[in-house]
Amino acid sequence: MSFGISTLPYGVFSTAPDGRDRRVGVAYGDAVLDLAAAAEQLRLPAAGAFAEESLNRFLAHGPAVWREVRDRITDALTSHQPRLPLLPRDRVRLHLPFTVADYVDFYSSLHHAENAGRIFRPDEPPLTPNWKHMPIGYHGRSGTVVVSGTPIVRPAGQRRSRSGSPAFGPTRRLDIEAELGFVVGVPSTLGQPVPLASFGEHVFGAVLVNDWSARDIQAWEARPLGPFLAKSFATSISPWVVPLDALQHARIAPPAREPAPLPYLDDAGAEPWGLDITMEIRLNGHVVSRPPFATMYWTPAQQLAHLTVNGAALRTGDLYASGTVSGPERDQVGSLLELTWGGREPIVLPDGAERTFLEDGDEVAITASAPGPGGERIDFGEVRGRVIPCPSPAPP
Amino acid sequence: MSFGISTLPYGVFSTAPDGRDRRVGVAYGDAVLDLAAAAEQLRLPAAGAFAEESLNRFLAHGPAVWREVRDRITDALTSHQPRLPLLPRDRVRLHLPFTVADYVDFYSSLHHAENAGRIFRPDEPPLTPNWKHMPIGYHGRSGTVVVSGTPIVRPAGQRRSRSGSPAFGPTRRLDIEAELGFVVGVPSTLGQPVPLASFGEHVFGAVLVNDWSARDIQAWEARPLGPFLAKSFATSISPWVVPLDALQHARIAPPAREPAPLPYLDDAGAEPWGLDITMEIRLNGHVVSRPPFATMYWTPAQQLAHLTVNGAALRTGDLYASGTVSGPERDQVGSLLELTWGGREPIVLPDGAERTFLEDGDEVAITASAPGPGGERIDFGEVRGRVIPCPSPAPP
Repeated sequence: MSFGISTLPYGVFSTAPDGRDRRVGVAYGDAVLDLAAAAEQLRLPAAGAFAEESLNRFLAHGPAVWREVRDRITDALTSHQPRLPLLPRDRVRLHLPFTVADYVDFYSSLHHAENAGRIFRPDEPPLTPNWKHMPIGYHGRSGTVVVSGTPIVRPAGQRRSRSGSPAFGPTRRLDIEAELGFVVGVPSTLGQPVPLASFGEHVFGAVLVNDWSARDIQAWEARPLGPFLAKSFATSISPWVVPLDALQHARIAPPAREPAPLPYLDDAGAEPWGLDITMEIRLNGHVVSRPPFATMYWTPAQQLAHLTVNGAALRTGDLYASGTVSGPERDQVGSLLELTWGGREPIVLPDGAERTFLEDGDEVAITASAPGPGGERIDFGEVRGRVIPCPSPAPP
Repeated sequence: MSFGISTLPYGVFSTAPDGRDRRVGVAYGDAVLDLAAAAEQLRLPAAGAFAEESLNRFLAHGPAVWREVRDRITDALTSHQPRLPLLPRDRVRLHLPFTVADYVDFYSSLHHAENAGRIFRPDEPPLTPNWKHMPIGYHGRSGTVVVSGTPIVRPAGQRRSRSGSPAFGPTRRLDIEAELGFVVGVPSTLGQPVPLASFGEHVFGAVLVNDWSARDIQAWEARPLGPFLAKSFATSISPWVVPLDALQHARIAPPAREPAPLPYLDDAGAEPWGLDITMEIRLNGHVVSRPPFATMYWTPAQQLAHLTVNGAALRTGDLYASGTVSGPERDQVGSLLELTWGGREPIVLPDGAERTFLEDGDEVAITASAPGPGGERIDFGEVRGRVIPCPSPAPP
């Protein structure tokens, strides 16, 4: 993965074996520009923020600083300024790029919501009556958001069994959810909603998200208060945060909405935040789906307006994910649940292996790209994770 | 409220007008013992942790340090050691006592779950089939956990209307939930469940919680992913964290459970963590309910074992709340939803005022106490909040 000059995503890296020398860097080509080392040479504003172990201090500075830093880095890289502290990317270790404050997961793909409804609640209409009136969401566990590459321990838990009493053991339906996540930089005040138009004043950028899910645990636990342990064991994110400024060429009109959203969600008169991003999911190296983010019913700007309409405050480091990205076609869905229709229709990989849900040792990688200026592609890097067995025996 | 020698709860206070001189203190009688100032004199271990703006650093030290500090403070106060830095409590300002990492809310009162089920889902059995097999819970918003006394802005949101399309505006059904919250001190490792017996190695103590809830928003949004904006606008906690060591005399056997819990939740052979704590809810100064924590079906130790059975890691500052505490009688319930049976049976206050849900200007205070050694009561202080109007007009 070689990042172009129009992407310039931010991350946290280290070079020492113990990982203690973490600092902020920007990816370019096959290299990392060490911003802690370059801050003085490039006369970066907010220079102290780049020697930190997370992006949070930089994120809190807001759009004017974000833009000035990006401009200076672009200038330095395109003017081939000498002696820039560029390190080969394969020599650095990447870490969780920011400290996650609150983590919210939305459910904003119409196709995913309809598919999940049909699979989980076959006797009811696939969409609940609220779905087309609001971006449905819930809070997840921010303490188990991990960086790409972190092994995913198969979780144990309760699942339905034929006896009426639940069974207990390692999940048999370990799944993925391919999503995009949005990272809040500038906090807001408790009691004051953030309107649709202020999206760019608060949100810094986007990451890839794999919201690992245990479908059997979820099916048993989620009534009446929603998913809990089925999701809280791990959520993986990509190490490089792509700034919104890199996504301006990817902005498109979202799908038509019927009925019209309430005023606080109505983006008909505003510049829209639909995004033409194509994602790719690889299972053990084989592409199994290409979810199109352009089909998302609710945009990240609408999600932010909804999240705060009750006065909930934002903090630097808040992460909210789009929900599983699924297009209308079977090869465009963002979960194995949909790809195998609830486990009833296994997929066959090119090497002949069949899968419904994930087996121990399986590795999933999600990538994405979007149009940039002058035909360049904006790349998100990847979020990758390998499943390792549940420690056995289960705890007493 | 005068705290006895067997309580000694921890909080964070300041004396400067700008609140910048925050530090850790312990409440005793009508005073606060300034631990930052007393650390050297009392030869406290972890002395540096008391000059912090939150309890987190102290909490991370673990049970041996927690106990040694408590012992030394008890000795100093009972030996009437001279020149202790004791400040009158009415001269200090109290702050959020710890930085909340993840916030989880459980749903562990059988009476509350049955009442809520009957009110919200009258056509279905009141308990979902999973309820007696696990402490049902969900993640809440840690960024909107506020300290007692913080004004509660009435949230706006969507609610069902007769037209089929939702209405939007300030909630008409603003409610409380009286709960107890448990505060994690010692973190755990991702992928490694925390067994029932390790409760006391991780959890430091307890606070009072008022989980403010907008019932009309909740009823419309909560299918299929659970409560979201109905809860995320504010959760109030008491400023004083009562150590588990102060609750040893309050430990009792929890109610009998049928069916028997799965092994990871089975506390039949262990010393139980039922707690004989009586709570009191005051609305505008009048006691409206006395919820008995002793009736809770699932204990905080079981909640912790469940929360981590999928390998989810704990962090210092994690807060998990019991769920609304409701006893079997109408004057023992922990919410107005139950007290007024979904708003159909208003309560009448001694001054003749009627209430179903909260009006602007209403103030709710929750207190609690438990048996201590030698007939002393262990007090939790209080969690208090007043409702202020929704800013109008609603945002565009």
